[in-house]
Amino acid sequence: MKKALGIDLGGTKIAVAIVDDKGNIFGNVERFPTPKTKKEIVETLKNIISKYENEVDFFALATAGAVNNENTRVIGSTANLPKGYKDIDFQSLTNKKFFLENDANCAAWAEYKIGASKGCKNSVMLTLGTGVGGGIIIDGKLLKGKSGSAGEMHFMMSRNQERSCTCGTFDCFEAYASGNGLRKTAIETTKNPDVTTYDVIQGAKDNVDTCLKALEIWQNDIALGILGLANIFDPDCFVLSGSMEKFVDTKKIEKFVNKNTVTTPTKIFHAKAGNYSGLIGAALLGFEKI
Amino acid sequence: MKKALGIDLGGTKIAVAIVDDKGNIFGNVERFPTPKTKKEIVETLKNIISKYENEVDFFALATAGAVNNENTRVIGSTANLPKGYKDIDFQSLTNKKFFLENDANCAAWAEYKIGASKGCKNSVMLTLGTGVGGGIIIDGKLLKGKSGSAGEMHFMMSRNQERSCTCGTFDCFEAYASGNGLRKTAIETTKNPDVTTYDVIQGAKDNVDTCLKALEIWQNDIALGILGLANIFDPDCFVLSGSMEKFVDTKKIEKFVNKNTVTTPTKIFHAKAGNYSGLIGAALLGFEKI
Repeated sequence: MKKALGIDLGGTKIAVAIVDDKGNIFGNVERFPTPKTKKEIVETLKNIISKYENEVDFFALATAGAVNNENTRVIGSTANLPKGYKDIDFQSLTNKKFFLENDANCAAWAEYKIGASKGCKNSVMLTLGTGVGGGIIIDGKLLKGKSGSAGEMHFMMSRNQERSCTCGTFDCFEAYASGNGLRKTAIETTKNPDVTTYDVIQGAKDNVDTCLKALEIWQNDIALGILGLANIFDPDCFVLSGSMEKFVDTKKIEKFVNKNTVTTPTKIFHAKAGNYSGLIGAALLGFEKI
Repeated sequence: MKKALGIDLGGTKIAVAIVDDKGNIFGNVERFPTPKTKKEIVETLKNIISKYENEVDFFALATAGAVNNENTRVIGSTANLPKGYKDIDFQSLTNKKFFLENDANCAAWAEYKIGASKGCKNSVMLTLGTGVGGGIIIDGKLLKGKSGSAGEMHFMMSRNQERSCTCGTFDCFEAYASGNGLRKTAIETTKNPDVTTYDVIQGAKDNVDTCLKALEIWQNDIALGILGLANIFDPDCFVLSGSMEKFVDTKKIEKFVNKNTVTTPTKIFHAKAGNYSGLIGAALLGFEKI
C-alpha cells in the first residue's frame, strides 16, 4: 500500500501525518510551531523529511499561498509566512517526490473525496476564518487558472469603497464574510470600536441585540456572495469550512440562494473532513498527480 | 469535408449559415424574424432543416437560455422567447444530429477557436448588450456546471438593494454593466428619468458632462466586476462582446484590474469573431462533441 506524508504548513503551526490513498491517517499527527524565518522552516522540513523518508512514497504539502500548476512552487503572497518562503525549492529537500498545493484547495479536495461534498463533481468550498479562502472543483478537477492562483474570494460586495480589504482594494467578499468582517460589522452595530469577533459570538449567545444583528448581517453578506457564486458556477453544492463556519445557518442560506438563483438549486453543507483536511487533501491530490 | 448548419436563434432574429470545422462560413447567411409562438418557431426550424438537410452533416443551434449538459434541451428561462420554447424537442425535427448550446457559450467558444481569445485556455467572455451574458472557458472546456446553466453574471455589486435586476433580486453585475445598467446610471447623473442608452452615448460624444460621468461610472462598475472574476478565475484573458462593448476602454480596465488583482495579470480584449460568432461557435462546438 502506498503512503504519503501529508504536511499542513500554516501561519502558526505545522501538522504532519502519514496518509494512504483512501485518506486514512496512520499513527499520530505530529505538530510543530511554524518557525519565524525561511531558514528555520527549511530546517524543520528537512528534519520532518529525514524522519519519514523511509516510511512514505512521497511528501504532500498543503501550504498557505497560491501554488503553480506544476505543483512545485509557491507563487504569490503568503502574508502569514516569512519573507522568502515562496522561494523555497521543496523538491530539493528530498529524493522522494515532493508535491504541493494551496491549503484551501487541499481542504476542498478532501471534502470532495471523503467529506461533505463527496461525489459532487462541481462544488465550491469557502473557508471562513480570519480571512476567506476558496477551493473550487469543476467537473472533478480543481480550478487553478492560468497560473495556479484561481479561487480567490475577492469579488466586490459594494461599489462605494465602504470597507477596506486585506487585498488593498475595498468591499471584497472577504471583507464582509470573514471573521474579521463580522468584527467590522459588529463595530457598526455596537458602536464599539474595540469589539472582537469573540465578543460578538458570546454576545449573540447572550441575546445581545447588537451582536445578534451583526451576526445576521454577516450571514446575509455570506448569502449574497454565495448567490453570486451559485449563478456563476451552478455547483452541486457549497461547503463551508474554517473556524467561523459553525456560526452559519446553512439551511437558511440554502433557502435564500435557491429562492433567488437564476441557475438550479444547490446545497450548502458544513465541512466534514475534519481538522486535518488540508494534509489529507494534499496527500489525496498527490496520489492522483504523482 | 464535414459541414454543419449553424443557427443563431435570438429574441428578434434567426440567422443560419453553413460552417466548416475551421469556422469558415460557406455561401450566404440567411436571416428570418423570430416568430412569436412556439408553433411558428418549430415550423420555421422545420423549413430551415428541410432546405439544408442534404447539404450538412448536422445542425448546431446557438440559443437564448441555458442548455443541458447533453446539449439536447433548453432549460431555465428564455425571457425573450415565447412560452413553451424550452419544451421543443429539437432532435425530433431531423434525422441528422441536432446539437444546441447557449448563445453566449457559443460566442465564447468562437472567440476561443478563431477570435480574440484564440489559444487562451482560460478565458471569460462577457456579452454587454441590453443585459449581460457570460461564457467561461476553463482549461479548454466550457464551464457548464451541474445542470448546464453556469456562467450567469448575476453576482452582487451592492449589499444595499440599490437597483433591481431582471433576475428578481438587486444589484447584480448585470444591473450595472449592461446597456440597461448604463441607462439607469445615466438617470442618476442626468436626473432625467426618460434618458435612453442612445442618449447617453450621443451625449458623451457631444461632451455632455452628465453623460460622460454616466459612461465613466458604468466602466468603473464593469472594471469592479471583472476584477472579482479575475480573482476567482485567474484567466488568460477576458473578451468583451455585444452591442455595448465598443464603448468600453479595455486598456483602462485592464490597467485597473492588473493593479488590483490578487492573482496574476490578465488581458482584456474586444471580441473579434464577428456578428456570426454565435452560429459559428455552435457549429465548432458541435464538431467537437458529435
